[in-house]
Amino acid sequence: MEFLCAKCQKTYPIGGLQYKCECGGLFSLKKAPGERVPITVSLGETVTPIIKRRFGGVEVNLKLDYFMPTGSFKDRGAFILINAIKAAGITEVVEDSSGNAGASIAGYSAAAGIKCNIYIPESTSPGKIKQLSAYKANVVKVPGSRDDTARAILEAAKATYYASHVYNPLFFEGTKSIAYEIYEQVGIPDYVVSPVGNGTMLLGLYLGFKELGKLPRLLAVQSANCAPVYRKFHGLAPAPAGSTVAEGIAVPTPMRMDEILAAIRETDGDIITVTDDEVAAAHEQLGAMGIYAEATASAVVAGVQRYFKPEEADGLNIVVPLTGTGLKK
Amino acid sequence: MEFLCAKCQKTYPIGGLQYKCECGGLFSLKKAPGERVPITVSLGETVTPIIKRRFGGVEVNLKLDYFMPTGSFKDRGAFILINAIKAAGITEVVEDSSGNAGASIAGYSAAAGIKCNIYIPESTSPGKIKQLSAYKANVVKVPGSRDDTARAILEAAKATYYASHVYNPLFFEGTKSIAYEIYEQVGIPDYVVSPVGNGTMLLGLYLGFKELGKLPRLLAVQSANCAPVYRKFHGLAPAPAGSTVAEGIAVPTPMRMDEILAAIRETDGDIITVTDDEVAAAHEQLGAMGIYAEATASAVVAGVQRYFKPEEADGLNIVVPLTGTGLKK
Repeated sequence: MEFLCAKCQKTYPIGGLQYKCECGGLFSLKKAPGERVPITVSLGETVTPIIKRRFGGVEVNLKLDYFMPTGSFKDRGAFILINAIKAAGITEVVEDSSGNAGASIAGYSAAAGIKCNIYIPESTSPGKIKQLSAYKANVVKVPGSRDDTARAILEAAKATYYASHVYNPLFFEGTKSIAYEIYEQVGIPDYVVSPVGNGTMLLGLYLGFKELGKLPRLLAVQSANCAPVYRKFHGLAPAPAGSTVAEGIAVPTPMRMDEILAAIRETDGDIITVTDDEVAAAHEQLGAMGIYAEATASAVVAGVQRYFKPEEADGLNIVVPLTGTGLKK
Repeated sequence: MEFLCAKCQKTYPIGGLQYKCECGGLFSLKKAPGERVPITVSLGETVTPIIKRRFGGVEVNLKLDYFMPTGSFKDRGAFILINAIKAAGITEVVEDSSGNAGASIAGYSAAAGIKCNIYIPESTSPGKIKQLSAYKANVVKVPGSRDDTARAILEAAKATYYASHVYNPLFFEGTKSIAYEIYEQVGIPDYVVSPVGNGTMLLGLYLGFKELGKLPRLLAVQSANCAPVYRKFHGLAPAPAGSTVAEGIAVPTPMRMDEILAAIRETDGDIITVTDDEVAAAHEQLGAMGIYAEATASAVVAGVQRYFKPEEADGLNIVVPLTGTGLKK
């Protein structure tokens, strides 16, 4: 198992300090046929449930992908990444997310006995740090802006393994398990509706269904306030990013933009935006049904109602994963 | 299916306003052979995972019983209770818990389209109300003490169905499903370590294993600061209850005390207390392993370390359910 530069085809060991190629290209994972990550660390991963619900007259298969050890689908990525690097002898990692990805990396690092350092902007709310602290992660508060945190993590990554949910292809190797579960639960859907920030879910869905040999259409959803993938897909000029209630997908410069665009196109999919009002309304709708998801997760439910007309959606197998629990913070 | 007074054997319909017998006795559930609650409402219940971990040299089967729709094992009770009363035509309920039981009743009521009113002391922290509000429960803040809230709920229960996690035997009919899962996952254990406040988990375990025909020893755990069942079991004089970090089991006057005592005795079990320091230490231990449980849930992990000597516990099948997620509040 190696990292493979998608640009120049150079390979690197999965346990090394290189988090991207010296040519600047991003890594994908190169595996021999049948090769698997050896699993020695588990926090009780289960198959997450699917329940049928109607939104705006459109019936969907809601996949509650926060029935997870740390409360979000990001555990899929951390599960595989941490198991793989533990096998490679890694004993300490750095990561830069105060959200779901950080909690997942911190939780699985704790389970694996790997020292975990999470870099976050100094301005991060105490509520977000609570779960990281429970997992005994070393929380490094970086003064200044988000860009300062980005600079600090890349500096730290020169000396310590970067367990990144964006750069590290082992994370996507993990998130692809959602496709296998969906296939076992409801077959190959007509559509899977995926939130898109850095693309951890969308690329996981793509990779998994690609392996399964049949691709559902991927309907990507971004926030209207931060929609770089949407704009590029539809040939619109870039626009400055604003804040949004869907903060988990507020990524102004997705590193894997090209892969995300290619995945949507290859599946004959589409990408849309939803407003904060629509996200908030979807969040309320879910709660009123007894489903307590995070605001970001609700964006896909807003997307369903914006994209599908009930009369056209009749009979379609539409899977809508909810990415995180509403209990955090 | 009827309510049966355990004291005078009088029966009542499950959809009526009587939450206890006119003789003062508490209800158990009377079912014909093979009779089941019809299920029409689901929030994606799964079999919760079991992972092996060692505490103080004692290996146990940790059952992560918060991989649940609203984040705690109380969903087992609400799932059956709400399904049963929906089938009986109930359209509105009252309940008096701002904790896990309240969230479960509110979540399943929302899923069932049943109006839900949760009575809580005015002093309840806003964090506890957030999840109830997400489920659109009507939160009734009662001025004064906890006793005032208790009086208010009993007054309200004269006019509206009381979906109580203490009085209503349908709730225990639900929590007993944990025994069936444990049996399928690890067989009949030697011990199950159960927190005890009102006894919703312990009595569920007892009822379930009783149906399965073989009882594990039930090791009950209470907080040293609030241990009425412990004191009665061991023949100690009652003592005033203090506050504890294990607030979910801080019940000074458990209504089903006699049933709890009988269950522990019948299983040749035992009951111990743990201090707040021990609970806090267990909570830290769990977090350091990547397991983020609520403080109350950690009491059983403290109990394991107090009760079992590693050399004597070797080879014992000890199941330790963790009742709630650390993400709440």
